Amino acid sequence: MDVVSDLEYFMRPKSLAIIGASATPGKAGYNFISNLLSSNFPGSIYPVNPHTERILGLKAYPQIADIPEAVDLAIPIVQPSLVPDIVRQCAEKKVKAIMVSSPGFADAGEEGEQLETEVLNIAREQGIRIMGPNTQGIMNLDAGLVAVSVVPVGELINGKGVSFVCHSGWFYSDWILRCPLIGLSKMVDLGNMGDVDEVEVLDYLGADPQTRVIVLHIEGIREGQKFMRVASEVTRKKPIIALKVGRSAAGAEAVASHTGSLAGKDEVHDTSFRQLGITRAMDMDEVTDFTKTFACLSPLPTGKRIGMVTFSGTGGVLAADACDEFGLSLAQLSEASVEKVKDIIPAWASVENPIDVGRVVDPEVIGRAYPAVLEALSEDPNVDAILVMAMTISTQPELSAYNVLREYAEKGLKKPTVVTGLRDEEGLKELSSLELKGIVTFPTVERAVKALAAAYSRHRFLSR
Amino acid sequence: MDVVSDLEYFMRPKSLAIIGASATPGKAGYNFISNLLSSNFPGSIYPVNPHTERILGLKAYPQIADIPEAVDLAIPIVQPSLVPDIVRQCAEKKVKAIMVSSPGFADAGEEGEQLETEVLNIAREQGIRIMGPNTQGIMNLDAGLVAVSVVPVGELINGKGVSFVCHSGWFYSDWILRCPLIGLSKMVDLGNMGDVDEVEVLDYLGADPQTRVIVLHIEGIREGQKFMRVASEVTRKKPIIALKVGRSAAGAEAVASHTGSLAGKDEVHDTSFRQLGITRAMDMDEVTDFTKTFACLSPLPTGKRIGMVTFSGTGGVLAADACDEFGLSLAQLSEASVEKVKDIIPAWASVENPIDVGRVVDPEVIGRAYPAVLEALSEDPNVDAILVMAMTISTQPELSAYNVLREYAEKGLKKPTVVTGLRDEEGLKELSSLELKGIVTFPTVERAVKALAAAYSRHRFLSR
Repeated sequence: MDVVSDLEYFMRPKSLAIIGASATPGKAGYNFISNLLSSNFPGSIYPVNPHTERILGLKAYPQIADIPEAVDLAIPIVQPSLVPDIVRQCAEKKVKAIMVSSPGFADAGEEGEQLETEVLNIAREQGIRIMGPNTQGIMNLDAGLVAVSVVPVGELINGKGVSFVCHSGWFYSDWILRCPLIGLSKMVDLGNMGDVDEVEVLDYLGADPQTRVIVLHIEGIREGQKFMRVASEVTRKKPIIALKVGRSAAGAEAVASHTGSLAGKDEVHDTSFRQLGITRAMDMDEVTDFTKTFACLSPLPTGKRIGMVTFSGTGGVLAADACDEFGLSLAQLSEASVEKVKDIIPAWASVENPIDVGRVVDPEVIGRAYPAVLEALSEDPNVDAILVMAMTISTQPELSAYNVLREYAEKGLKKPTVVTGLRDEEGLKELSSLELKGIVTFPTVERAVKALAAAYSRHRFLSR
Repeated sequence: MDVVSDLEYFMRPKSLAIIGASATPGKAGYNFISNLLSSNFPGSIYPVNPHTERILGLKAYPQIADIPEAVDLAIPIVQPSLVPDIVRQCAEKKVKAIMVSSPGFADAGEEGEQLETEVLNIAREQGIRIMGPNTQGIMNLDAGLVAVSVVPVGELINGKGVSFVCHSGWFYSDWILRCPLIGLSKMVDLGNMGDVDEVEVLDYLGADPQTRVIVLHIEGIREGQKFMRVASEVTRKKPIIALKVGRSAAGAEAVASHTGSLAGKDEVHDTSFRQLGITRAMDMDEVTDFTKTFACLSPLPTGKRIGMVTFSGTGGVLAADACDEFGLSLAQLSEASVEKVKDIIPAWASVENPIDVGRVVDPEVIGRAYPAVLEALSEDPNVDAILVMAMTISTQPELSAYNVLREYAEKGLKKPTVVTGLRDEEGLKELSSLELKGIVTFPTVERAVKALAAAYSRHRFLSR
């Protein structure tokens, strides 16, 4: 049985048993079922609970053995000490895979560690794969599977094929709240990673046709060689963004108490990530920025020369500094571009790159100047990517940055285009909606440039 | 006449003339007047325009000379080439200060540079101080003065005494949109800094009783020695946060074309900022984070030992890494603290710091655990600051992070407390409102720790 088909029992089970199902809203044993029902899980759901007849309209069974059909995936939600026996019962029922959600194993001291070893030994003997322990669960929005122990935050949609491998419910939840329109395709919380590890899931997602971008939250890499082999294959096919935590001594200690993992030396990761073409993120801001860049930006940059249009001279200064810091450069505009825009922008303003179209005093200037400059930069052979500093607030809404950029995007984007600038809340929402059309928005000039640099770095990796 | 009283004519003029006033909404000559009216400017406003009788209900005068009263501050909004003559007319009228808003001077090549020199020479001969040219204007919300050429973004309030010295309308506007509840006290856009420079304004704000925190946006420092002398005095009295742009060669070039300033060597700034106790920000995210920390966080940290409460083990790992990176440490909790919380948090969870109160499955646990842990950390002599990782989304609103933290804040904050975590839009707004009560919110664990480190660094500077 190869890894991909093993994981299919977790990612696309035909039938599911919730052992320790509960009729009490808020309990994990209730949440798993209600989440599966809300996500329109197409397979069978079997609540197991000896004290109740029905849970959320589904017939409950006293024992696993009582379930009339075969069970692909069992999810025990019971005291850790009861898990070994549950695994034995699952083995008798010929359950293929078990996801142990409860904490209290290798994450909780020596006793818990022994219990985890016991569970893993039984499962191995019986040929059952284990996800966790101490996992919030799995999502596969391409298969109607939302098997998580908590009420998910935000709306669950799958816009752009972003899949997460993590050790934390917080990690993917934060992403959902940050990028509600992009959503996620698949999410696997590895928990303590007792059996199924990040390499297997990475391999699975590498082969998964719906996954376009993979985000890895790494507490520890168990088998470095295996990771490097699989990652080097996957990263040729799709971008991997990795947040490696437990970088410091104190962080490594915190990792041990979180999921019992060994965090490993940080220097190793930094070098190997670069060699493997993995985009390393240092915090959730970078995870967000890089992930939405790879998921949405279209096309991706094939060079490092940035053309910029701005309403603020300071924006141009910040961009110049940021290009220098992140290894990009400001394009030298072609003569044709200068010809095209020189009559549109104010006499005092600069037709050099960055093109400063002037203050936002006059929305009509903005409404004429932005489209013309964007058109010129799109056609300029000296420009590889376009950075727009725009203002969403306008006295004439039809000339707002959103409307100008929407029209520009709808004509078909010839160059990768990113946006930053002044935005109120409403304007930010509007601009973010352009991400589905290929234009990505960032909170600062620096983050926009850094994200373009990450994308260009991937281009160089693939051309190597 | 000393600097402070010179600047009073810009910051608290008794009477103002708008030369080139316009009745056309959207034009700078209109915006200046409508902004002053909206801000309830208590002095006299004199529109000057020979072609109209009234503008926005105010009597317009054909010439400066026709104004019946003395004029403290004149704001010419005319073609750059007409400015020298306007300055001469102002001199005859004994105008004390002139703010030249128009661009097209040292920011626009050699010809503009000559024009700027001409204007400055006339003004100097006549004893008139010049703000700009190429400035969006000045705000002094403590004196009802909103003298800017554009319609300001967001609501103008002065919550916490934050004052800005900048070369860009974008800079202060971005701040207003980012921190709408904190607002600003004073804002001076230096523009090309032909006469009044950042040192004079810094000196003014240092002495200004309403200003508690100063934010400097620096394109170039003209007189390093003078800057260091004034900054070293001011920084003992109140925190200065500086964003120095034009750090790279390309950035310095962009600065020259923006305001004609010389950006200078970056290494000089980095060392001198540290010596002077200036908090250096590298982008607008850091400006925001550090400014709201100094403006709102109360008390400020006097040590580097962080106590943390989290709902996510990953949060603890991230905090440990961030403490290591930014020179702070995770506190070793006192035995008393451990005693206080050990029965409240789940058996499997960690009573070591960071205290993980468990998953957010059960809001009642959260509702009981957070207050108890916050109380324990507040009393713990080993803890200098508290980092909260919270979730604003709760099935029981009365147990939401916001409500828990509001009650905690209302009892009186004994330790500096910062918050990060999972938040939806509504939750973020609620959490941000706690900034006025002393608890500051950050988008990531790393940024929360970095801001605490900046605050602790100021403590060390002041104790030195």
